This record gives sequence, structure tokens and C-alpha cells, in this order.
Amino acid sequence: MFHHPEIPRLAVIGFGAFGQLIARHLRHHIPVCVCDPVMRANDLPQVDLEDAARCHIVVLAVPLSRMEDVLHQIAPHLSPGAMVVDVASVKIRPAQMMQNILPGHVQIVASHPLFGPESARDGLDGHRIAWCPLRGSGHRRAAALLRRMGLRVLRTTPDQHDREMAVVQGLTHLVARGISQLGPMPDRLTTASFRHLVQAAGMVGADSPELLRTILRENPHAAPVRERFLDAAAQIAEDLR
Amino acid sequence: MFHHPEIPRLAVIGFGAFGQLIARHLRHHIPVCVCDPVMRANDLPQVDLEDAARCHIVVLAVPLSRMEDVLHQIAPHLSPGAMVVDVASVKIRPAQMMQNILPGHVQIVASHPLFGPESARDGLDGHRIAWCPLRGSGHRRAAALLRRMGLRVLRTTPDQHDREMAVVQGLTHLVARGISQLGPMPDRLTTASFRHLVQAAGMVGADSPELLRTILRENPHAAPVRERFLDAAAQIAEDLR
Repeated sequence: MFHHPEIPRLAVIGFGAFGQLIARHLRHHIPVCVCDPVMRANDLPQVDLEDAARCHIVVLAVPLSRMEDVLHQIAPHLSPGAMVVDVASVKIRPAQMMQNILPGHVQIVASHPLFGPESARDGLDGHRIAWCPLRGSGHRRAAALLRRMGLRVLRTTPDQHDREMAVVQGLTHLVARGISQLGPMPDRLTTASFRHLVQAAGMVGADSPELLRTILRENPHAAPVRERFLDAAAQIAEDLR
Repeated sequence: MFHHPEIPRLAVIGFGAFGQLIARHLRHHIPVCVCDPVMRANDLPQVDLEDAARCHIVVLAVPLSRMEDVLHQIAPHLSPGAMVVDVASVKIRPAQMMQNILPGHVQIVASHPLFGPESARDGLDGHRIAWCPLRGSGHRRAAALLRRMGLRVLRTTPDQHDREMAVVQGLTHLVARGISQLGPMPDRLTTASFRHLVQAAGMVGADSPELLRTILRENPHAAPVRERFLDAAAQIAEDLR
């Protein structure tokens, strides 16, 4: 594939629901190509993993279970100064993998866009992205690009991210899955607070089982938060008997 | 107290947070007086229980634990054709009490306004009220008044109400109380769904312990819903181990 070397290109590796969402928005700001073993991107250039690795910015939108393998495959082909950004819903584990596997001449940012196809259905404006620069200084220009896209870029560390997300995502998904197992919810006699609860559950209800496992199992801080919430709720129920 | 017999008057018995809310809105549509052993209504006529019972419409905004006693006190003084409306958050028990204690010449509606001081902070428009006419035909004119106030009047039965509210209020309050025991919530790294969850919890977080007990304990359908939700959530946590 021939391209002018001066124009930075961005590769989205992994063209699932989230890869498609970010490719659709990024293409208005930077030339985007896509790499996925199965999904076709009809209106964006499709490249193989080696070509994707040769781009200036490589966004990893693959399931966490695939990340280690993909990192090993792209590592030999990444250019000096290239920037690799992951978008997984937990940050401690992907940050460790990227730092261990990627060569020293590659810049690294661990990121977590705090939105999805459902919540960003009307656009990115005002949505948030957790942003953990791990190596190099290119993260500043990248963050500026994200701000131009309307995003709020929130600097944090992988550990602090996972701590807060244990509550934010861990609780939301636990409650949402618990509710979904109660069957259809009332929709006539409802209170405003209940409608917020149902809306929260609905927003994450379509998330893939893979994403759920990542959020609930691959975050080392998630289990303690979950236990505390369940203990508190069970105690409330017990006190009512 | 002298008043023209042709103008219907409405008494709000119980001037707590909710009694104050409805008195504030009702007074623009009908002359309102207030009865409370403790709370003072500076800008509304204050009457004793006997005078309150002599009004055309008597709204019971007292805690459920006080209702049986208040019903016995007002019963001898209610005029033929007067209408008694309760606003408790459960409906099976107050409906039984009103039907058993109030004389046959009194009209009865069991109601549950599905809003509160927090959710109706900006007005009643579009809010809902569950409406269970139990005796007499005056409920039609009363419902028309509520619609003029912007409310959606939803006809139901006490049993159906308590069935749906076991989910709507039971779950919201259980989740809200569980969350409140986890300490301060993250407010920077948040998702849209989590913000809905926190908003739901915040809306009911200021409710009184008395109201919580009523919602969680005095609804015969609440305990089974609570058990099913907790079992489902615990099973999800178990599956993740």
C-alpha cells in the first residue's frame, strides 16, 4: 500500500461494535484504515496486521483476551515513534502487557473511552475518555485531537482507573444483570428514580458477554466492591425480616 | 370556622415533606387547609382534626404507622359524600384500613403520587399518580383536577399497584441504600449509565426512614422481588469466581 509518508495515518485493529464507533468519528480528523480478521469495513481501507502496525497511530480495539497475541504480532512492525493506544475497559492488565511486549521505541497510551455505541448514539460531545500516558510525549497531541472531537480527556493512572471503574462499571453491570433476570420491568407505574435505574440497565444491557467478563473479572478491584455491595444489600434485606 | 358551604374545601392531614408539596400545588386550584400536630403552615389556614374531617376532600398525608389512628379519629366527623384520599407508598394495607374504618357514606380513593419533593422540584408536569377508586363516583372529578395540574392519572388496583411497586420502588431503594453504604461515589471517571444509577440513588437517598420501611416492609410483594434480585446478583458474583 502506497501512502504519503508525511500524513499521519491511524489504524483501528479490531472492527467490532466499538472499533466501528471510533473509526466512524476519527475518520473526519485523520486518515483511518481498519484491520479485522472477519469484519469488513466497506467504506474504509482494510489492511492486514503488518500494514496496520506500520501506521503512526495504532488503536487496539480487540477483546482483552486477544490483546497479548495481537501485541506480539504487531511488535516487530511498529515504527520508531509510533503510538499504540488500547481502549480496553480495564487498564492495569493491558498497561502491563503493552509495556512488557512493545519495543522501547514505541509510545504507549492506555485509554478507556467511557462511552459506547448506545450512550454515544447521538455523538461524542461531552463524553469522557480515561487517559493514561505510559511512554513518550505524543499523548499531548493525541489528547488535543480527542478534545477537538468533543471528548473530555481525563488523565489518570491504570490503578486509579481500575479502582474507580470497580465501582462505576462493576456496580452498574452487576445491578443491570440482576435486574435483567427479573423479567420485563413495569413501564406505566414508574417513578423518575426507577426510570433512571432502568435507563442505566438498558445502556449496558446490550454489551457483549466478552465485555462483561472483562469488566467484572479482569479488574482486580472489582470483586471486593461487588462483595461489599452484595453484603450491604443482603444486610438491608435481613434487617427488614 | 365559618366558610361558604358551596365552595369545596380540601384538607391536607399531615404536613411533612409530601403534605407540604401537594398543599403548595393544590392551593392554586381549590381552597386548602392544613392539619398537623407539630408542623406549622404559615400561609395556609391551620385546623384541628375535627375541622379537617368536615372538609369535602380529605387528603391523608400521614405516615402509614399513623393512618389507622387518624382514620378512627376523623371517621365520626366526615360528611356524607366527603371524599377521603390517601397518598401512601403502598396501597393494599391503606385501602383495607380505609374501607374497614370509614363510614359507608364516605367516598374513598387510594392513591400514590409517583413523585416526591426531589423529583418534582421543577413542578408536577408529566409526573404520575397511581389512582385506585374504591368507593363512590367523585374520583372522576378529582382525577380531572389532577390532570389540570399536569399529572398523568393512572388507574390501577391496590394489589396491582403493590405488585409493580415491589419492583419499581423496592429495587430502587434497595440498590440506592446498598450504594450509599459504599461511601462517596466516583464523579470524574464516570459512564452515562453510572450517572443514571447515581441519579436514581440520589433521588431516593433523602427519603425518610419511615418511608423506606413502608416501601420495603409494608408491601407484601416486596420481599419476594428483593430475594430474587439478590439471588440473581449473588449468582452472577459466584459465577465470576
